[in-house]
Amino acid sequence: MKNEQFVLANRPKGTPDDNTFRLEEISKKDPSDNEVMIKPLYISVDPYMRGRMSDAESYVAPFEVDQPLHGHVVGEVLASKAEGFAEGDYVVGIMPWQRYITITTDNIQKVQDANVPLHLYLSTLGMTGQTAYHGLLKIGQPQSGETVVVSAASGAVGSVVGQIAKIKGAKVVGIAGGKEKVAYLKDTLGFDAAVDYKSDDFEKSLEEAVPNGVDVYFENVGGKISDAVFKHLNTFSRIPVCGTISNYNDVEQDVGPRIQPILIKNQALMQGFVVGNYSNDFQEAGQTLAEWVKDGKIHTEVSVEEGFENLPKAFNNLFEGKNLGKQVVKI
Amino acid sequence: MKNEQFVLANRPKGTPDDNTFRLEEISKKDPSDNEVMIKPLYISVDPYMRGRMSDAESYVAPFEVDQPLHGHVVGEVLASKAEGFAEGDYVVGIMPWQRYITITTDNIQKVQDANVPLHLYLSTLGMTGQTAYHGLLKIGQPQSGETVVVSAASGAVGSVVGQIAKIKGAKVVGIAGGKEKVAYLKDTLGFDAAVDYKSDDFEKSLEEAVPNGVDVYFENVGGKISDAVFKHLNTFSRIPVCGTISNYNDVEQDVGPRIQPILIKNQALMQGFVVGNYSNDFQEAGQTLAEWVKDGKIHTEVSVEEGFENLPKAFNNLFEGKNLGKQVVKI
Repeated sequence: MKNEQFVLANRPKGTPDDNTFRLEEISKKDPSDNEVMIKPLYISVDPYMRGRMSDAESYVAPFEVDQPLHGHVVGEVLASKAEGFAEGDYVVGIMPWQRYITITTDNIQKVQDANVPLHLYLSTLGMTGQTAYHGLLKIGQPQSGETVVVSAASGAVGSVVGQIAKIKGAKVVGIAGGKEKVAYLKDTLGFDAAVDYKSDDFEKSLEEAVPNGVDVYFENVGGKISDAVFKHLNTFSRIPVCGTISNYNDVEQDVGPRIQPILIKNQALMQGFVVGNYSNDFQEAGQTLAEWVKDGKIHTEVSVEEGFENLPKAFNNLFEGKNLGKQVVKI
Repeated sequence: MKNEQFVLANRPKGTPDDNTFRLEEISKKDPSDNEVMIKPLYISVDPYMRGRMSDAESYVAPFEVDQPLHGHVVGEVLASKAEGFAEGDYVVGIMPWQRYITITTDNIQKVQDANVPLHLYLSTLGMTGQTAYHGLLKIGQPQSGETVVVSAASGAVGSVVGQIAKIKGAKVVGIAGGKEKVAYLKDTLGFDAAVDYKSDDFEKSLEEAVPNGVDVYFENVGGKISDAVFKHLNTFSRIPVCGTISNYNDVEQDVGPRIQPILIKNQALMQGFVVGNYSNDFQEAGQTLAEWVKDGKIHTEVSVEEGFENLPKAFNNLFEGKNLGKQVVKI
């Protein structure tokens, strides 16, 4: 049976397109000692991967041109020559975008519980759930009765941020694009309010949604949407800075009001983070998240594209606001 | 003997000028019960007062038009009807800009030690010293061997920030305007390097001064100077945001590269503060600062304008970069 992989053909300038990705035929490789062969069931696409497509210095090494893209994968072990892994095991980890993946087991692990939808290990029980958990609780530190605003609120991270904030007793306001997403946040996820940034009266709707100001702003988008939120910050507010998806594809530098006067006025804290900063606490957080999922306190929406060949399309969905919840590709 | 006061005649648009301040003759008032009459010896002018001249919402109430300006004063008690205060006592506190000040003792206190230059209670042993101490140590948390950059480094706050950072074993780089100030930072205060932001090769000089990057940036100026520093932030760097004097007189909003991508890339923390946040620790900090002054570890430069009538001129010196160290008016 043939094998295929997606490589980074060219570093994108602006939005990734057909020139960015190249599908290549490669050979299947039987596992050597300490290796397993994995068939991916779901492959994750995540906004941070856009940064790896550029060669700018960042917190994670750039992808190499003509080499396979990598991302989180949940899959089934087809063959194993590695201790502790057997045929039929379900595993998760960062792996190359290949139809058949033969790798050492250094960076993969068995899923904790195979009796849940396996794509959860790419979302709420995986990296994006951990991101939401640590960014919100360690930096945002929402208190009962406080107002938490989250942008990209219907996305994989934002939707979990809002639901954890609700568990902690906060009033939660989500910002998302379009009526469908706004309805989803209020009706399905139980947010106290949701605001459509694509609406002409976005700024007014936002103001009405936060009559007591903003104590925690979980930053996923950057740009003008966030500028609008900053006008409502309370004294001693906290801003975990997780991402700025609004400008990942920008060629020009993102320019706007400088933040320093706002931080002084509100004695506010703003902190950038990546989930890896909290790896010592992954296990504990994973158990808590799994309990919340089991108890129905966290609902996970998943947007599925079918077929390995649709990985580039699924990736671009992230920047076009097409996904609701976690975007994955089902293989 | 006549009494006089400076009132806020008009809220300034842009740089304060002759229309901003008005000198008025008023009557001297003998103290009533619980009041003292104080003759100011030194009156402090501080950048934060510019904010109080506007009516924008802020962390401190605006001055009122046609009412006296207020600021820190160190003075001598001429007459007292308040318990615990006697003629000849030296006191410090926030008081109106008047030649003879009759007030209750709620917001004033006796100086800890009258055997030091009394203007120190307006600088290193007063508000600006406390500002430097808490902002640097509580938010910046410099570690031995780290690189600390401070802007407005020859000013009242910046000069103390740099010297405390040296005490803590950090490598200290100051940013200031002009050759005289740069020489002062290196030769008198013992900074490891100093960079002239007015120089054509500012960005290059800055880069050369921080070969190991920036672990703490103590923000006093905002604007393009700080944008240049942000390019050199290290992972897990900390940015106490104390002031943005470069734009206090701006009429237009200050615009520049948005900070969020920089904070994510470096997992950096940025926190606005005002010194009042740390009032519980003022006494302990004051004792430590007094010891450092006594031991010659903190040198305090003071720029003196002579005469009550020169308060407006002294205030504007702050924004014209004319002061070296703490700007005061000697009455």
